[in-house]
Amino acid sequence: MWTLTELPIVQAPMAGSQGPKLCIAVCQAGGLGSIPCAMLTPDVLRAQVAEIRAATRAPFNVNFFAHRPPAPDPAREAAWVERLSGYYSEFGLDPAEAGKGPGRAPFDEAMCAAVEELRPPVVSFHFGLPDESLLARVKATGAQVWSSATTVEEARWLARRGVDAIIAQGREAGGHRGMFLTDDIDAQPGLFALLPQVVDAVKVPVIAAGGIADARGVAAALMLGASAAQIGTAYLLSPQASTSAVHRAALKAGRDDTTRLTNLFTGRPARGHLNRYLREQGPMNAAAPAFPLATGAITPLRNHAEKTGSGEFSPLWSGEAAPLAREEDAGEFTRRVWKDASARIATIARRTCD
Amino acid sequence: MWTLTELPIVQAPMAGSQGPKLCIAVCQAGGLGSIPCAMLTPDVLRAQVAEIRAATRAPFNVNFFAHRPPAPDPAREAAWVERLSGYYSEFGLDPAEAGKGPGRAPFDEAMCAAVEELRPPVVSFHFGLPDESLLARVKATGAQVWSSATTVEEARWLARRGVDAIIAQGREAGGHRGMFLTDDIDAQPGLFALLPQVVDAVKVPVIAAGGIADARGVAAALMLGASAAQIGTAYLLSPQASTSAVHRAALKAGRDDTTRLTNLFTGRPARGHLNRYLREQGPMNAAAPAFPLATGAITPLRNHAEKTGSGEFSPLWSGEAAPLAREEDAGEFTRRVWKDASARIATIARRTCD
Repeated sequence: MWTLTELPIVQAPMAGSQGPKLCIAVCQAGGLGSIPCAMLTPDVLRAQVAEIRAATRAPFNVNFFAHRPPAPDPAREAAWVERLSGYYSEFGLDPAEAGKGPGRAPFDEAMCAAVEELRPPVVSFHFGLPDESLLARVKATGAQVWSSATTVEEARWLARRGVDAIIAQGREAGGHRGMFLTDDIDAQPGLFALLPQVVDAVKVPVIAAGGIADARGVAAALMLGASAAQIGTAYLLSPQASTSAVHRAALKAGRDDTTRLTNLFTGRPARGHLNRYLREQGPMNAAAPAFPLATGAITPLRNHAEKTGSGEFSPLWSGEAAPLAREEDAGEFTRRVWKDASARIATIARRTCD
Repeated sequence: MWTLTELPIVQAPMAGSQGPKLCIAVCQAGGLGSIPCAMLTPDVLRAQVAEIRAATRAPFNVNFFAHRPPAPDPAREAAWVERLSGYYSEFGLDPAEAGKGPGRAPFDEAMCAAVEELRPPVVSFHFGLPDESLLARVKATGAQVWSSATTVEEARWLARRGVDAIIAQGREAGGHRGMFLTDDIDAQPGLFALLPQVVDAVKVPVIAAGGIADARGVAAALMLGASAAQIGTAYLLSPQASTSAVHRAALKAGRDDTTRLTNLFTGRPARGHLNRYLREQGPMNAAAPAFPLATGAITPLRNHAEKTGSGEFSPLWSGEAAPLAREEDAGEFTRRVWKDASARIATIARRTCD
């Protein structure tokens, strides 16, 4: 039984598309709101947590990346800028502007100190877990520690390290794969296959993620053994998300068959809708700099294109169920999706018992 | 409501791994049994249907491939044999033996005549639908006509042509993708995302396929809007299947993360467990001959390896949920999976209504 929040609904942390507003709306509705911290400084995190606590006493989740920062590889990074130089010429931009993309920092000493000070109820990680010493300090705060698994092997690895819950992330999921024991994107099963196998493999609660965007998905996740359902893309059209205009347009126009896994934007595979950049350079490209260094070369192109209303060079992160998403208040959606899921389960139970 | 059979369980047709025995066991248990016909002659089909009808009066499904036969391309086929010549040398085989693989014929005049004569209750197609004139003749027999969709676009295409039900095949599924409007394997969503979108797009019943191997999957499929669940891999370990020894061993040893989509065996992408052939030549390889011509070159290698108990050159078709499969009588499994699914729905309904 899920006891952390009133409703077994977790709002997925979505770096770049949301801040405390979305988290607060979900928390106030009885779900678990999240804030993505990989692009924040500790001081901004402090301010965001203060904003959340001023609005609600409900539990919330702070999410960090746990990757190992790559060794810089100037030759590879220069070759990547060179590869994209045709776009720089086309837009009248100077390739020397490359390299100024927003960073994505792994959970570190400074963030750990902020967590010790702020004591968030849930601390979740993507790309594995931080070093043992940092992890021990987070656990010592009393926080629940969660992380994502894209395979049964990753789930077992996390369980052995004492996480309190595992997010089973199916291949359908939007944004970055949580994968950390492999870089083979074809190793990640779809949620239908992954979820029950993770549930069988570990003793901690499992949260289902990937392709869940309405009440049907929430109900199905419970049937497969999930303790709760994590929803990402469906929140991106809510007024509380800070989703960009080009991203919102892509989510509304996108279809079930128009998302792809791509490493072009950051160096790690993430799911988003097809655009010119993916079609011409990927969607996967072995020459892309290591995470998060690929961000530098695309950022000037993205910013230029977005100024003209074009999302052709933007990461249009999306799960495969984006067409199920609606423009709806995040709090109302949170309550409705659970109410409808419960009603659906009851209706089908009556039908199958006959 | 599903009214075709007592239980909303469909046994997936699995060419090369089953015949009437599996079909009969499932039919007798109240599910819909299937026989794969792409590798049969019309006379063998007649004999198999007679065997089914001698054992049960329940409805059953005959399944055909609806691909367009490729123009032979001797240069491409020779280059493929040349590519595999190292294996021929290693095994002491003559590459001149290549080209004698089992054929896979599309539904044609002769098979249509057999269907008109045999009047099976359900006729299902993979890779789209046959030509309009053949399709009209099948419909005129009174048979239900089904086909598989791997995207919403394919589902709409099938619905416009008047199919009676659509099998929504998620990416998790074992064996051949049913895809026919694209050859981009990354266009196929996972079942969690695909199924509700297909249900929303068409008015006919939708059957869920891919990654369903136990009661949890059946229950989840109903929650997502399916009228029935199609199960394949989970039947391959039953005594009624004719699954080879190396295939059974691979299914028992396989994990959630060890299947891949490969075109190496037939020329069309199909999901099976990794082995030496997939690791060294694929899993996808643009040089493979067009479907079904790639079969010719691998068959002598496969036969030789299997004689030594090795599945390293065999198609080890499997969905991503293979580890959930058990060695169980197919009829008992069919009854149990539905009983357990109903019980699970009732239990979760009680819990969520509190």
